[in-house]
Amino acid sequence: MTIKRLQVGPRMSKIVIHGDTVHLCGVTADKTKGQSLAEQTREILGVIDALLAEAGTDKSKLLAATIWLSDIRTVDEMNSVWDAWVVPGATPVRACIEALLQGPEKKIEIQVTAAK
Amino acid sequence: MTIKRLQVGPRMSKIVIHGDTVHLCGVTADKTKGQSLAEQTREILGVIDALLAEAGTDKSKLLAATIWLSDIRTVDEMNSVWDAWVVPGATPVRACIEALLQGPEKKIEIQVTAAK
Amino acid sequence: MTIKRLQVGPRMSKIVIHGDTVHLCGVTADKTKGQSLAEQTREILGVIDALLAEAGTDKSKLLAATIWLSDIRTVDEMNSVWDAWVVPGATPVRACIEALLQGPEKKIEIQVTAAK
Repeated sequence: MTIKRLQVGPRMSKIVIHGDTVHLCGVTADKTKGQSLAEQTREILGVIDALLAEAGTDKSKLLAATIWLSDIRTVDEMNSVWDAWVVPGATPVRACIEALLQGPEKKIEIQVTAAK
Repeated sequence: MTIKRLQVGPRMSKIVIHGDTVHLCGVTADKTKGQSLAEQTREILGVIDALLAEAGTDKSKLLAATIWLSDIRTVDEMNSVWDAWVVPGATPVRACIEALLQGPEKKIEIQVTAAK
Repeated sequence: MTIKRLQVGPRMSKIVIHGDTVHLCGVTADKTKGQSLAEQTREILGVIDALLAEAGTDKSKLLAATIWLSDIRTVDEMNSVWDAWVVPGATPVRACIEALLQGPEKKIEIQVTAAK
Protein backbone atom coordinates (compact mmCIF):
# COMPACT_ATOMS: atom_id res chain seq x y z
CA MET A 1 0.00 0.00 0.00
CA THR A 2 1.24 3.48 -0.79
CA ILE A 3 2.07 6.19 1.75
CA LYS A 4 1.17 9.75 0.81
CA ARG A 5 2.02 12.65 3.09
CA LEU A 6 0.53 16.16 2.87
CA GLN A 7 1.48 19.33 4.75
CA VAL A 8 4.74 17.67 5.74
CA GLY A 9 6.64 19.55 8.45
CA PRO A 10 9.99 18.85 10.10
CA ARG A 11 8.24 17.58 13.24
CA MET A 12 5.08 15.97 11.90
CA SER A 13 2.85 15.75 8.89
CA LYS A 14 -0.72 16.99 9.09
CA ILE A 15 -2.03 14.23 6.82
CA VAL A 16 -0.70 10.72 6.17
CA ILE A 17 -2.64 8.51 3.77
CA HIS A 18 -1.82 4.80 3.89
CA GLY A 19 -3.71 2.83 1.29
CA ASP A 20 -7.36 3.67 2.00
CA THR A 21 -6.80 5.06 5.49
CA VAL A 22 -6.34 8.76 6.20
CA HIS A 23 -4.54 9.72 9.42
CA LEU A 24 -4.74 13.34 10.59
CA CYS A 25 -2.56 14.97 13.22
CA GLY A 26 -4.04 16.02 16.54
CA VAL A 27 -5.60 19.45 16.00
CA THR A 28 -5.78 22.24 18.59
CA ALA A 29 -7.16 25.76 18.41
CA ASP A 30 -5.09 28.49 16.86
CA LYS A 31 -7.25 31.54 16.13
CA THR A 32 -9.63 30.78 19.01
CA LYS A 33 -6.89 29.85 21.51
CA GLY A 34 -7.96 31.15 24.92
CA GLN A 35 -11.61 31.47 23.84
CA SER A 36 -14.47 29.23 24.97
CA LEU A 37 -14.38 25.47 24.55
CA ALA A 38 -17.29 25.70 22.09
CA GLU A 39 -15.36 28.23 19.97
CA GLN A 40 -12.21 26.12 20.04
CA THR A 41 -14.18 23.00 19.09
CA ARG A 42 -15.79 24.81 16.14
CA GLU A 43 -12.41 26.01 14.88
CA ILE A 44 -10.85 22.55 15.20
CA LEU A 45 -13.69 20.78 13.41
CA GLY A 46 -13.42 23.34 10.60
CA VAL A 47 -9.70 22.60 10.30
CA ILE A 48 -10.46 18.87 10.25
CA ASP A 49 -13.00 19.40 7.46
CA ALA A 50 -10.34 21.21 5.43
CA LEU A 51 -7.70 18.53 6.07
CA LEU A 52 -10.12 15.76 5.13
CA ALA A 53 -10.98 17.62 1.91
CA GLU A 54 -7.28 17.97 1.10
CA ALA A 55 -6.96 14.21 1.62
CA GLY A 56 -9.82 13.59 -0.81
CA THR A 57 -12.39 12.54 1.75
CA ASP A 58 -14.90 14.07 4.18
CA LYS A 59 -16.51 13.62 7.59
CA SER A 60 -19.04 11.10 6.30
CA LYS A 61 -16.12 8.65 6.11
CA LEU A 62 -14.78 9.15 9.63
CA LEU A 63 -13.60 5.94 11.25
CA ALA A 64 -12.36 6.97 14.71
CA ALA A 65 -11.89 10.08 16.82
CA THR A 66 -9.93 10.74 19.99
CA ILE A 67 -10.86 13.86 21.94
CA TRP A 68 -8.72 15.20 24.77
CA LEU A 69 -10.23 17.86 27.04
CA SER A 70 -8.17 19.82 29.53
CA ASP A 71 -11.17 19.57 31.91
CA ILE A 72 -13.35 16.53 31.36
CA ARG A 73 -16.21 18.20 33.23
CA THR A 74 -16.68 20.44 30.19
CA VAL A 75 -17.58 17.52 27.94
CA ASP A 76 -21.20 18.66 27.43
CA GLU A 77 -20.11 21.98 25.92
CA MET A 78 -17.87 20.12 23.45
CA ASN A 79 -20.57 17.56 22.65
CA SER A 80 -23.08 20.24 21.68
CA VAL A 81 -20.73 21.36 18.89
CA TRP A 82 -19.63 17.82 18.02
CA ASP A 83 -23.19 16.48 17.74
CA ALA A 84 -24.13 19.23 15.28
CA TRP A 85 -21.04 18.53 13.17
CA VAL A 86 -21.08 14.76 12.65
CA VAL A 87 -23.06 13.23 9.81
CA PRO A 88 -26.14 11.35 11.06
CA GLY A 89 -25.72 7.64 10.37
CA ALA A 90 -22.00 8.01 9.73
CA THR A 91 -20.56 8.67 13.19
CA PRO A 92 -17.08 7.33 14.07
CA VAL A 93 -16.05 5.38 17.12
CA ARG A 94 -14.81 7.77 19.77
CA ALA A 95 -12.89 8.06 23.00
CA CYS A 96 -13.00 11.27 25.05
CA ILE A 97 -10.67 11.64 28.01
CA GLU A 98 -8.98 14.38 30.02
CA ALA A 99 -5.42 15.50 29.30
CA LEU A 100 -3.46 18.69 29.70
CA LEU A 101 -2.45 20.06 26.31
CA GLN A 102 0.41 22.14 24.90
CA GLY A 103 -0.48 25.48 26.47
CA PRO A 104 -3.01 26.21 29.23
CA GLU A 105 -5.09 28.27 26.76
CA LYS A 106 -5.81 25.10 24.77
CA LYS A 107 -8.92 23.36 26.06
CA ILE A 108 -9.30 20.62 23.49
CA GLU A 109 -7.39 18.51 20.98
CA ILE A 110 -9.07 16.24 18.43
CA GLN A 111 -7.45 13.57 16.28
CA VAL A 112 -9.35 11.57 13.67
CA THR A 113 -8.80 8.83 11.12
CA ALA A 114 -11.02 8.44 8.07
CA ALA A 115 -11.45 6.23 5.07
CA LYS A 116 -10.53 7.61 1.68
CA MET B 1 -12.48 -0.72 1.17
CA THR B 2 -15.97 -0.74 2.60
CA ILE B 3 -17.10 1.03 5.78
CA LYS B 4 -19.67 -0.75 7.92
CA ARG B 5 -21.05 0.86 11.07
CA LEU B 6 -22.93 -0.96 13.84
CA GLN B 7 -24.75 0.45 16.86
CA VAL B 8 -24.71 3.85 15.22
CA GLY B 9 -25.66 6.68 17.55
CA PRO B 10 -26.00 10.43 16.95
CA ARG B 11 -22.68 11.08 18.71
CA MET B 12 -20.61 8.02 17.88
CA SER B 13 -20.83 4.49 16.59
CA LYS B 14 -19.86 1.61 18.84
CA ILE B 15 -18.35 -0.38 15.95
CA VAL B 16 -16.81 0.79 12.67
CA ILE B 17 -15.43 -1.85 10.32
CA HIS B 18 -13.12 -0.58 7.58
CA GLY B 19 -12.03 -3.34 5.25
CA ASP B 20 -10.50 -5.94 7.56
CA THR B 21 -10.06 -3.63 10.55
CA VAL B 22 -12.60 -3.37 13.36
CA HIS B 23 -12.58 -0.19 15.43
CA LEU B 24 -14.50 -0.18 18.72
CA CYS B 25 -15.47 2.88 20.75
CA GLY B 26 -13.86 3.52 24.12
CA VAL B 27 -15.82 1.47 26.67
CA THR B 28 -16.44 2.45 30.29
CA ALA B 29 -18.37 0.75 33.07
CA ASP B 30 -22.11 1.09 33.19
CA LYS B 31 -23.60 -1.50 35.59
CA THR B 32 -20.46 -1.56 37.75
CA LYS B 33 -19.92 2.21 37.73
CA GLY B 34 -18.64 3.17 41.18
CA GLN B 35 -17.59 -0.39 42.00
CA SER B 36 -14.01 -1.66 42.21
CA LEU B 37 -11.59 -1.31 39.35
CA ALA B 38 -11.51 -5.10 38.95
CA GLU B 39 -15.31 -5.19 38.63
CA GLN B 40 -15.33 -2.34 36.13
CA THR B 41 -12.58 -4.02 34.09
CA ARG B 42 -14.51 -7.29 34.01
CA GLU B 43 -17.67 -5.55 32.82
CA ILE B 44 -15.82 -3.62 30.13
CA LEU B 45 -14.02 -6.68 28.78
CA GLY B 46 -17.36 -8.48 28.62
CA VAL B 47 -18.83 -5.60 26.61
CA ILE B 48 -15.81 -5.69 24.30
CA ASP B 49 -16.29 -9.45 23.79
CA ALA B 50 -19.91 -8.79 22.78
CA LEU B 51 -18.99 -5.94 20.42
CA LEU B 52 -16.25 -8.02 18.79
CA ALA B 53 -18.74 -10.86 18.29
CA GLU B 54 -21.22 -8.47 16.70
CA ALA B 55 -18.43 -7.36 14.36
CA GLY B 56 -17.78 -10.96 13.39
CA THR B 57 -14.48 -11.34 15.23
CA ASP B 58 -13.13 -12.12 18.71
CA LYS B 59 -10.36 -11.32 21.16
CA SER B 60 -7.92 -13.72 19.50
CA LYS B 61 -7.71 -11.18 16.69
CA LEU B 62 -7.00 -8.10 18.81
CA LEU B 63 -4.48 -5.74 17.23
CA ALA B 64 -4.15 -2.86 19.71
CA ALA B 65 -5.57 -1.70 23.02
CA THR B 66 -5.46 1.64 24.82
CA ILE B 67 -6.29 1.61 28.51
CA TRP B 68 -6.92 4.77 30.47
CA LEU B 69 -6.95 4.55 34.27
CA SER B 70 -8.17 7.38 36.48
CA ASP B 71 -5.35 6.44 38.89
CA ILE B 72 -2.33 4.82 37.25
CA ARG B 73 -1.20 3.43 40.61
CA THR B 74 -4.07 0.93 40.33
CA VAL B 75 -2.62 -0.70 37.22
CA ASP B 76 -1.89 -4.03 38.95
CA GLU B 77 -5.56 -4.53 39.86
CA MET B 78 -6.54 -3.96 36.22
CA ASN B 79 -3.77 -6.19 34.91
CA SER B 80 -4.91 -9.16 37.01
CA VAL B 81 -8.24 -9.10 35.16
CA TRP B 82 -6.69 -8.24 31.80
CA ASP B 83 -4.09 -11.02 31.96
CA ALA B 84 -6.80 -13.62 32.60
CA TRP B 85 -8.87 -12.32 29.68
CA VAL B 86 -6.40 -12.11 26.79
CA VAL B 87 -5.72 -15.14 24.61
CA PRO B 88 -2.23 -16.58 25.23
CA GLY B 89 -0.12 -16.12 22.11
CA ALA B 90 -2.54 -13.59 20.65
CA THR B 91 -2.04 -10.50 22.79
CA PRO B 92 -2.39 -7.04 21.21
CA VAL B 93 0.01 -4.13 21.46
CA ARG B 94 -1.01 -1.93 24.34
CA ALA B 95 -0.60 1.46 25.94
CA CYS B 96 -1.84 2.13 29.47
CA ILE B 97 -1.80 5.68 30.82
CA GLU B 98 -3.62 7.81 33.37
CA ALA B 99 -6.55 10.04 32.42
CA LEU B 100 -9.61 11.37 34.15
CA LEU B 101 -12.75 9.96 32.56
CA GLN B 102 -16.34 11.11 32.06
CA GLY B 103 -17.55 10.84 35.65
CA PRO B 104 -15.44 10.37 38.81
CA GLU B 105 -17.10 6.98 39.38
CA LYS B 106 -15.46 5.67 36.21
CA LYS B 107 -12.04 4.23 36.96
CA ILE B 108 -11.15 2.80 33.57
CA GLU B 109 -11.81 3.13 29.84
CA ILE B 110 -10.59 0.61 27.26
CA GLN B 111 -10.53 1.00 23.48
CA VAL B 112 -9.43 -1.76 21.12
CA THR B 113 -9.01 -2.44 17.44
CA ALA B 114 -9.12 -5.94 16.00
CA ALA B 115 -8.78 -7.75 12.72
CA LYS B 116 -11.90 -9.20 11.17
CA MET C 1 -5.20 -9.84 5.82
CA THR C 2 -2.76 -11.78 7.96
CA ILE C 3 -1.91 -11.03 11.60
CA LYS C 4 1.69 -11.56 12.66
CA ARG C 5 2.77 -11.02 16.27
CA LEU C 6 6.38 -10.60 17.47
CA GLN C 7 7.74 -10.48 21.02
CA VAL C 8 4.47 -11.88 22.27
CA GLY C 9 4.06 -11.67 26.04
CA PRO C 10 1.25 -12.85 28.32
CA ARG C 11 0.00 -9.26 28.72
CA MET C 12 0.76 -7.68 25.37
CA SER C 13 2.78 -8.09 22.21
CA LYS C 14 5.44 -5.58 21.35
CA ILE C 15 4.70 -5.80 17.61
CA VAL C 16 1.49 -6.70 15.76
CA ILE C 17 1.55 -6.61 11.96
CA HIS C 18 -1.84 -6.58 10.25
CA GLY C 19 -1.54 -6.70 6.50
CA ASP C 20 0.69 -3.74 5.65
CA THR C 21 0.28 -1.96 8.99
CA VAL C 22 2.73 -2.35 11.86
CA HIS C 23 1.45 -1.57 15.36
CA LEU C 24 4.01 -1.14 18.16
CA CYS C 25 3.28 -1.16 21.88
CA GLY C 26 3.67 2.01 23.90
CA VAL C 27 7.36 2.27 24.83
CA THR C 28 8.75 3.78 28.04
CA ALA C 29 12.29 4.13 29.34
CA ASP C 30 13.98 1.19 30.98
CA LYS C 31 17.72 1.79 31.26
CA THR C 32 17.28 5.58 31.49
CA LYS C 33 14.31 5.47 33.87
CA GLY C 34 14.67 8.35 36.30
CA GLN C 35 17.12 10.20 34.02
CA SER C 36 16.34 13.34 32.02
CA LEU C 37 13.48 13.53 29.56
CA ALA C 38 15.96 13.90 26.69
CA GLU C 39 17.77 10.71 27.78
CA GLN C 40 14.50 8.81 28.12
CA THR C 41 13.36 10.02 24.70
CA ARG C 42 16.62 8.91 23.09
CA GLU C 43 16.35 5.45 24.65
CA ILE C 44 12.72 5.05 23.58
CA LEU C 45 13.37 6.12 19.99
CA GLY C 46 16.24 3.62 19.84
CA VAL C 47 13.91 0.86 21.04
CA ILE C 48 11.35 1.92 18.42
CA ASP C 49 14.04 1.76 15.71
CA ALA C 50 14.86 -1.79 16.79
CA LEU C 51 11.19 -2.87 16.91
CA LEU C 52 10.54 -1.37 13.46
CA ALA C 53 13.57 -3.22 12.09
CA GLU C 54 12.31 -6.47 13.59
CA ALA C 55 8.98 -5.80 11.87
CA GLY C 56 10.75 -5.33 8.54
CA THR C 57 10.29 -1.58 8.29
CA ASP C 58 11.90 1.66 9.52
CA LYS C 59 11.14 5.19 10.66
CA SER C 60 10.85 6.49 7.08
CA LYS C 61 7.53 4.63 6.96
CA LEU C 62 6.01 5.99 10.16
CA LEU C 63 2.29 6.72 9.88
CA ALA C 64 1.27 8.02 13.31
CA ALA C 65 2.77 8.68 16.73
CA THR C 66 1.21 9.35 20.10
CA ILE C 67 3.45 10.90 22.74
CA TRP C 68 2.45 11.10 26.39
CA LEU C 69 4.50 13.35 28.68
CA SER C 70 4.14 13.29 32.45
CA ASP C 71 4.60 17.08 32.36
CA ILE C 72 3.47 18.72 29.13
CA ARG C 73 5.54 21.82 29.94
CA THR C 74 8.63 19.76 29.07
CA VAL C 75 7.55 19.29 25.45
CA ASP C 76 10.43 21.37 24.03
CA GLU C 77 13.06 19.07 25.57
CA MET C 78 11.36 16.06 23.98
CA ASN C 79 10.93 17.82 20.64
CA SER C 80 14.65 18.58 20.37
CA VAL C 81 15.36 14.83 20.41
CA TRP C 82 12.32 13.95 18.28
CA ASP C 83 13.11 16.51 15.56
CA ALA C 84 16.64 15.10 15.15
CA TRP C 85 15.28 11.54 14.90
CA VAL C 86 12.50 11.76 12.33
CA VAL C 87 13.27 11.46 8.62
CA PRO C 88 12.88 14.81 6.80
CA GLY C 89 9.97 14.56 4.37
CA ALA C 90 8.65 11.41 6.01
CA THR C 91 7.23 12.64 9.32
CA PRO C 92 4.15 10.93 10.79
CA VAL C 93 0.99 12.55 12.09
CA ARG C 94 1.34 13.13 15.80
CA ALA C 95 -0.52 13.91 18.99
CA CYS C 96 1.36 14.92 22.15
CA ILE C 97 -0.56 15.22 25.42
CA GLU C 98 0.07 14.98 29.15
CA ALA C 99 -0.54 11.78 31.09
CA LEU C 100 0.87 10.19 34.20
CA LEU C 101 2.66 6.94 33.32
CA GLN C 102 3.38 3.66 35.05
CA GLY C 103 5.91 4.87 37.60
CA PRO C 104 6.78 8.46 38.56
CA GLU C 105 10.31 7.98 37.18
CA LYS C 106 8.86 7.60 33.69
CA LYS C 107 8.56 10.95 31.97
CA ILE C 108 7.49 9.85 28.51
CA GLU C 109 5.75 7.09 26.59
CA ILE C 110 5.69 6.89 22.78
CA GLN C 111 3.52 4.65 20.61
CA VAL C 112 3.80 4.51 16.82
CA THR C 113 2.27 2.77 13.85
CA ALA C 114 4.13 2.33 10.59
CA ALA C 115 3.66 0.93 7.14
CA LYS C 116 5.49 -2.24 6.23
